[in-house]
Amino acid sequence: MTTSTSARQSTSTGKRGETVASPAIDTASVTALLERGRTLATPVLRAAVDRLAPPMDTVAAYHFGWIDAAGNPSTGDSGKAVRPALALLSAEAAGAAPEVGIPGAVAVELVHNFSLLHDDLMDGDEQRRHRDTVWKVHGPAQAILVGDALFALANEILLELGTVEAGRATCRLTLATRKLIDGQAQDISYEHRERVTVEECLEMEGNKTGALLACAVSIGAVLGGADDRTADILEKYGYHLGLAFQAVDDVLGIWGDPDSTGKRTWSDLRQRKKSLPVVAALAAGGEASERLARILAADAKKTETEFADFTEEEFASRAALIEEAGGREWTSQEARRQHATAIAALDEIDIPEKVRAQLVALADFVVVRER
Amino acid sequence: MTTSTSARQSTSTGKRGETVASPAIDTASVTALLERGRTLATPVLRAAVDRLAPPMDTVAAYHFGWIDAAGNPSTGDSGKAVRPALALLSAEAAGAAPEVGIPGAVAVELVHNFSLLHDDLMDGDEQRRHRDTVWKVHGPAQAILVGDALFALANEILLELGTVEAGRATCRLTLATRKLIDGQAQDISYEHRERVTVEECLEMEGNKTGALLACAVSIGAVLGGADDRTADILEKYGYHLGLAFQAVDDVLGIWGDPDSTGKRTWSDLRQRKKSLPVVAALAAGGEASERLARILAADAKKTETEFADFTEEEFASRAALIEEAGGREWTSQEARRQHATAIAALDEIDIPEKVRAQLVALADFVVVRER
Repeated sequence: MTTSTSARQSTSTGKRGETVASPAIDTASVTALLERGRTLATPVLRAAVDRLAPPMDTVAAYHFGWIDAAGNPSTGDSGKAVRPALALLSAEAAGAAPEVGIPGAVAVELVHNFSLLHDDLMDGDEQRRHRDTVWKVHGPAQAILVGDALFALANEILLELGTVEAGRATCRLTLATRKLIDGQAQDISYEHRERVTVEECLEMEGNKTGALLACAVSIGAVLGGADDRTADILEKYGYHLGLAFQAVDDVLGIWGDPDSTGKRTWSDLRQRKKSLPVVAALAAGGEASERLARILAADAKKTETEFADFTEEEFASRAALIEEAGGREWTSQEARRQHATAIAALDEIDIPEKVRAQLVALADFVVVRER
Repeated sequence: MTTSTSARQSTSTGKRGETVASPAIDTASVTALLERGRTLATPVLRAAVDRLAPPMDTVAAYHFGWIDAAGNPSTGDSGKAVRPALALLSAEAAGAAPEVGIPGAVAVELVHNFSLLHDDLMDGDEQRRHRDTVWKVHGPAQAILVGDALFALANEILLELGTVEAGRATCRLTLATRKLIDGQAQDISYEHRERVTVEECLEMEGNKTGALLACAVSIGAVLGGADDRTADILEKYGYHLGLAFQAVDDVLGIWGDPDSTGKRTWSDLRQRKKSLPVVAALAAGGEASERLARILAADAKKTETEFADFTEEEFASRAALIEEAGGREWTSQEARRQHATAIAALDEIDIPEKVRAQLVALADFVVVRER
């Protein structure tokens, strides 16, 4: 959150760190919304995690960045906290106080982090948010176990409210979690396939990122007594917001500045990820697209070790080809299209004008971020 | 289920296959109860698993024994199905039709199998129910992913009922799942400790086995509209039944007949498990107990490979020492004590006499089984 929008815009012509759209966002308002989400949700999240039996409480605290690997208090990067901010706004969308959304914010964060713990292990990712991942520090068994515990805790936090609304909220969260799992299954299966279509990639990203973001935007409203139609439309906004978010992530995953993203240069290329810029470039046709296809087909036959020996220049030349074939520009455009669809959904429901403006500001923020 | 009680009793003086107690159980009644649970719950369980996206549906079907590793239909051993039988009886305990308990039976089975998938991976267990485990056949990522999916599905099956009772049932299932996870965390941490007390072992087994069995016995009643007190007392019966079940399992884990259990000879000793007979023998004091302690302390320093080279005789001599120190007899007595506590709990509530008799018969069955 330290990067100001104006600083970002001044560098937006550079090769690295270039982002996809520049709506005139109200930085102060978004910062305040994210801060409110963090301030209200974090103490409840920490109290929830404190319920875990040792050593799971410690492992979870490490994952959330509250302690370091040696167990000392830490103020590490705990993420952007877009979801808690959305869950509180969601309660306000239903005319309730933001605090009504807190259990929803906490439950969504718990599910999100359950999926990070398990995905990092399945994908063999050794770093997240500039730090070693849980399976790397505490071993695979703890990553599985603490992930499971966070998932259970998410349901517990909601269901112990004991209301009909809590049951409805948990049902929506459960369906979103199933989609999250479907998305991870697709992500894994695509790794072994030579070709993935743009549609398949969008479906996977809708499951992996859209579904839980959608739930963050409906869960507070459901807890605040909103009807199913209102919740469904809020989810529509959240789903497309998630796809916009992911399109930006996919651009950053190749061309992002390591200092901002906390990942290595050309991160997604190193993992041979079939992200949107790649599949769009391959689908585009033309000379650059065909050259890229031949190179990636040859890459696919290489072992992990051979691949790890690639130079910076080899990754840079692949990134340049993706850009030449139009994959980068298509993905940036896609982020803008999803952003527009998200905002248009808000016209279908009657929510307080201030809440609508804040949801728009958050959507703007999501497409201009650098990390 | 093919072993008749009379056949078992006739061999109950043999070293292998000897079991812990011989209440006069009504075999026909128990067989009918287990069969009813299987008949009513399995189609709904299969329909639930069919909701999973490929390849998770196939991996789950393999885990449940419905198909073999090549994908061909199979009629493998899918377990004793004690939990579904209990969930249906649970509905009847609240005066509802057994069918009311079906979603509860299915949800409990899904959570049970979620934990098997993850535990087998964490523990490195290569075999379950005479077959290779999921992580061994389909890889660790699928074991994690399908486990996650089954856990989510369990909540989905209950919450889509959309009733207040379903919310209460899911809340109980969630709390039981958290205990299940606590128990697995304890089990893992005990592996690295030199000494575990009998109390710690019982607490771990109460979490790992008691909590979900308890939930199976309350979930149908909750879905049938039972109040919290009735549900709590049914859980008390189920919790102690679970501890009795586990005590029998711990005896079978050392002295069980491989043809019946589907595990290798001296299975728990091969895994250096600190199960009840072991911790009870170590706590007993006396010459055999002290010799056992010295031997196990030396064993703990050996590598997996050195340990794998042990002969049948070396395991047999350890088992004999555990028995000489009284570990086997104490565990058999403990199964009977827990069985008695379980049955006594039923006196605290007013449930139909026929249901009470069937719960007693199931408890009797649990302590005399050979697998």
